[in-house]
Order: sequence, then C-alpha cells, then structure tokens
Amino acid sequence: MSSITKPATAVSVLGVGAIGSAIAQALLAAGITVTVWNRSPGRVDELTARGAEPATSSAEAASASPLVIVCLTDYTAVDGILDDVSDAIAGRTIVTLSTGSPRDARHAAQKAESAGAAYLDGGVQTEPAAVGTAAAVFLYSGSPAVFEEHRTTLETLGTATYLGADPAAAAVQDLALFGLWYDAQVGYLRALEAIRSVGIDVEAFAAAAATQLGHVVHATADTAREVTTSSFPRGPADLTEHAHVLEQLTELRHDQRLGDGGLDDIHGLVQQRIALGHGPEGLNSIVE
Amino acid sequence: MSSITKPATAVSVLGVGAIGSAIAQALLAAGITVTVWNRSPGRVDELTARGAEPATSSAEAASASPLVIVCLTDYTAVDGILDDVSDAIAGRTIVTLSTGSPRDARHAAQKAESAGAAYLDGGVQTEPAAVGTAAAVFLYSGSPAVFEEHRTTLETLGTATYLGADPAAAAVQDLALFGLWYDAQVGYLRALEAIRSVGIDVEAFAAAAATQLGHVVHATADTAREVTTSSFPRGPADLTEHAHVLEQLTELRHDQRLGDGGLDDIHGLVQQRIALGHGPEGLNSIVE
Ligand SMILES: NC(=O)c1ccc[n+]([C@@H]2O[C@H](COP(=O)([O-])OP(=O)(O)OC[C@H]3O[C@@H](n4cnc5c(N)ncnc54)[C@H](OP(=O)(O)O)[C@@H]3O)[C@@H](O)[C@H]2O)c1
Ligand SMILES: NC(=O)c1ccc[n+]([C@@H]2O[C@H](COP(=O)([O-])OP(=O)(O)OC[C@H]3O[C@@H](n4cnc5c(N)ncnc54)[C@H](OP(=O)(O)O)[C@@H]3O)[C@@H](O)[C@H]2O)c1
Repeated sequence: MSSITKPATAVSVLGVGAIGSAIAQALLAAGITVTVWNRSPGRVDELTARGAEPATSSAEAASASPLVIVCLTDYTAVDGILDDVSDAIAGRTIVTLSTGSPRDARHAAQKAESAGAAYLDGGVQTEPAAVGTAAAVFLYSGSPAVFEEHRTTLETLGTATYLGADPAAAAVQDLALFGLWYDAQVGYLRALEAIRSVGIDVEAFAAAAATQLGHVVHATADTAREVTTSSFPRGPADLTEHAHVLEQLTELRHDQRLGDGGLDDIHGLVQQRIALGHGPEGLNSIVE
Repeated sequence: MSSITKPATAVSVLGVGAIGSAIAQALLAAGITVTVWNRSPGRVDELTARGAEPATSSAEAASASPLVIVCLTDYTAVDGILDDVSDAIAGRTIVTLSTGSPRDARHAAQKAESAGAAYLDGGVQTEPAAVGTAAAVFLYSGSPAVFEEHRTTLETLGTATYLGADPAAAAVQDLALFGLWYDAQVGYLRALEAIRSVGIDVEAFAAAAATQLGHVVHATADTAREVTTSSFPRGPADLTEHAHVLEQLTELRHDQRLGDGGLDDIHGLVQQRIALGHGPEGLNSIVE
C-alpha cells in the first residue's frame, strides 16, 4: 500500500518539545513543508533555521497544512489546543501524539470531528533520538481510510503500527503494555523483598526469576490462543492447586512493604516516595 | 564438598504419592536401603516389589533410617505425621518436601527439633518424571551442617539447591517464584482483556507483550543490584512520570473484569471459577 501513497507535501506540527521537534526534523529531512508552532515561541527557532515555517498562532499553524500533528505533554493541553484551533481545522486531519487514557482519546476524537476534522490518535513508544528511524514505534488508531491516506507521511517518523478504528485503541495498547511491565516488575520487586527477608542470595535468585519470567514469555502466544478460543487446559496446575498456592502467597505478602495491592497501591507508594523528595528516581525506588 | 560425603546407606520415605514414590525409586536406583510407609498401604507394593522395605507404621519407618524424607500433600498432613513419629526421630534428620508457607516450615522445624531431630525444609520444583535427573530441582533450607551431611544423598534426587539457615527460606523462594509467575501472567491476562475490548489483534499484541516482558527479564540482575545497593537511577521514566501513567492505568482497569486487585482478588476469581465447576482448568480460565 505505502508505495502508491505519496508523502504529504505539507504538515503542521503543534508543540515542538522533545518528541515534536524530532518529528518536525524528520519531516523536513523527508522534503516535506513543515509549519511549526509552540506555546513558548523560542522553541521553534532551531527548526525555522532548518527551513520550517513559523506560525504566530496555533490556529494559523493548524490551517496551514492538510495534516496537523499535535504533540503535547498530555490531553489537558490537547483539549485546550483543540478549542483554540476549532475554527481552522475543517477538512484537515488531526493526529495527536500524547500519552493518555482511552477516555482522553475518545474525547479528543469527538472534539476534532465536531470541528469538521478527521482524527487519528497516536501513541509514542520511542525516545526522541530514534525518531525518523524504523526503531521508533508510533501507534495509531482511528478511521482506517484516514490512516491509509497519511500512512506514507507517518512512516517518515518511524514504524507506524495501526491498531484499529476505535480511536482509543492506541491509548489502550500503550497503557496495556505499560501495565504488563508494571505488573511483572512489581512482582519481581515483591519476590526480591520476600527472599531478602530470609537471607537468600539475591544474585542467584535473579537468575531463577529470569527463568521463571521466561515461562510467561514463551507462553504468550499460547495464552492468547486460550483466551480467544475460551479453552483453558490445566497446564502445570489446575485451579484447585492454584487456590492453595494463592492462599499461601497472600499470607506471605501480608507482612511485606510492597503488599499485595494493585497498581492503585503502587501509585500510592510512588506518591509517598515523591513526597519524600525521590521524584527523580526510577520505579525500583518503591522498595525503600 | 560432595565428593567427600558418601550417600546415606539407609533412607526412609514417608508418603509415596507421585513425588514420594519417584524419590524412593531414585534412592533404590542409587543402591540405598529404602524403607517406605504410606497412609494408604497399597501404594507401597510396587516399591517393595523393587526392593524397598515396607514399614507397618510411620513411627517404625521413621526410626529405621538416619535420614527420613516426608513427602505429603501439605503441612497439615506433615503436622500430623510429626506428632505420630515424635518418639521415634531423636538423632534422625527429617526432610519435608511439601509446598507450604514460611510459617508452616518454621512450625515443622520447631516440632522436629523439639523431638530431638535435625530438620531440613524442602521445596519440590519438578514433575515426578524428572526425579533422579539433574533437571529435577529441589530447594532446601535449614542448618548448613545438616545439609552438607546429607547433600550427596539428596543429590541422587536431582539438583539440590541450598538456600540458607532459616528453615523458611525454601518455602519463601518457592512462593516468591510462584508469585512472580502469577503477577506476570495475570498482568498479561489484564493486558489481553484491555486490548480485546477495543478490537486490537490479539496475536500481534502477544508478540509485543513478549518483547515488553523481555525488558523485565533482561533487567533482573540490574534490578537486584539497585535493590541491594539502594540506588535507583531514573531509567526510562522517573517516579513523577510513573505516577501519571499509573493513574491512567488504574482508570483503565477500573472497568475490567480482572480489575486491579492483588493476588487476594485473583484467589477470589479462582474460587468463583471452581464453584462454577471449572476446577480442572488452568489459571487462564479466570478471564471468563
Ligand atoms: N520524550 C519521550 O521520550 C517520550 C516517550 C514516550 C512518550 N512520550 C509522550 O510524548 C508526549 C510529548 O512528550 P515530549 O517528551 O515531547 O514532551 P516535552 O518535551 O515536555 O514537550 C511538551 C510540549 O507540550 C507543550 N505544552 C504543554 N502544555 C501545554 C499547553 N497547556 N498548551 C500548549 N502547549 C503545551 C510544551 O510547550 P512549552 O514548550 O511551551 O512548554 C511542549 O511543546 C507526552 O505525552 C509524552 O508522555 C514522550
Ligand atoms: N506432583 C508434582 O508435580 C509436584 C510438583 C511440585 C510440588 N509438588 C508438591 O509436592 C508435595 C507432594 O506432592 P505429590 O504430587 O507427591 O502428592 P500426591 O501424589 O497427592 O501424594 C500425597 C501424599 O500425601 C499423603 N497424605 C496426604 N494427607 C495425608 C495425611 N493426613 N496423613 C498421611 N499421609 C497423607 C498421601 O497418602 P495417601 O496415598 O494415603 O492419600 C500421599 O502419599 C505436595 O506438597 C505438592 O504440592 C508436587
């Protein structure tokens, strides 16, 4: 498909922070006319020096191109910008690239569409430095026809993964992958807390833990098939045996700092650490 | 060390279910005199046909050998047997091999020791078919001197991993590894539930999930080092960024069947499925 669609000749980028400016540069490198706007105006200077067109308002920027990429911190910012540009985007396609919830994505889609624009929601799964290479993965969801129309342009930013017509799909995939990481990482931190409390060698345990997680990794396709076909073979243990082990695990975790709560509890521990001045640390900091 | 310790010439095995009978066979194959006892007497016949000595009571079996392996369903059974044999085990070493909690292990250790026996707690991380090969992993904890005394004999059963002087260590390692598996597997089931709700292709997602879990696997040694040295570099995100994502994830999970609870909640879902007649199924059955 991509070979028959030419890149857009003009794209506007609203918000040229770390990701937005990398995107503008990748588009410029592909020979595309790029109009840029940023709330703090100084941030566009480097891009205009490289050939981007500066706009004096978000509405002017949005009306300048058939494809408008909005790359802001969060959906509160997106919401404000969609209000500001609502009179200027009829007939345009808006692509937002911000980490947000499914509700955020659906709300932005509705707002853009009621202003007469087509809408794609996007998720950023890359660091700024990789933008413009295939290693940079961007997730998109929304109308398949709109995605096909802009696919070649979007592919100049990196690998463009299309997830379906529901505008929330990109946000859901993004969050679902984050959630999987949290569950596994927090599970490992809980295991480390338990084994340290009885003096087990941590390095040897790390190797055993890697092997154990490997079982989940190797079963990902089989598990997916069980879930889609609603057939649940016993595997290494049946539910009655699982119930027995889960009871003992709950007892074990009862006395642990990391406890047995969900990500809501982990969020609470993260907030505690931030309040104690540890905001710049990584997630593992919650073990303290 | 193991080359200077000769295998025990006599071992008693109390409880010859799936694991216990495999153990008795591995000991017989190593030329060791094996005394066997089982609550349901018929179960020892095949072993006596292969050369094991039958005992008419658990106390008779326990007094017959310097090393006594107790391999029962759970610690409720172990507790009863330790009462029955308490007058017969002074000077013996008791090794229990049952899945149980740290509290169970400490309780059994106390009971055996107050009857004048040495005690090792063990965990079984193998299927019966692998017993007698290096692929069968058994975990042990308790006095290091007692473990060294019996190491060569225990190595005839499989790989003997010694975890430390606290008798609870084997139970903790066993449970900690189980817990890691549950957290990662349930995290993956939650991710599948989320992406199915917006029509994302499940097979493609399985591959992305395997990659994501791979990040946790590759970081196991680094994470362990961060925890032991109490230094928590930012990594891909700092706590403030994590707090933002965790908030959105909690919102997403709010409406999901698998929710955001801990293993206590998962235990509840398992019990629900058992009550509906799905006890023989595997863990993935909780998605229904
Ligand atoms: N950077 C990464 O490695 C990375 C990785 C994965 C996902 N993401 C996601 O990608 C999105 C963009 O990230 P980034 O790293 O480019 O962020 P960033 O460098 O902090 O840039 C944020 C941009 O949003 C603008 N902005 C914020 N609030 C605004 C408002 N109320 N009105 C107008 N503009 C506003 C900022 O303008 P000012 O210059 O005026 O402040 C700036 O242009 C975020 O959702 C982030 O979670 C980033
Ligand atoms: N099998 C595996 O693949 C596997 C893997 C990992 C861990 N484990 C653990 O290893 C342990 C043994 O498992 P297994 O598969 O060998 O179990 P099993 O085949 O069900 O055998 C259980 C044994 O316990 C005896 N028993 C149960 N309650 C008793 C009581 N109150 N008094 C006296 N004896 C009693 C049974 O005697 P009767 O014959 O009279 O019923 C039988 O000898 C369990 O803790 C299990 O969780 C097993």
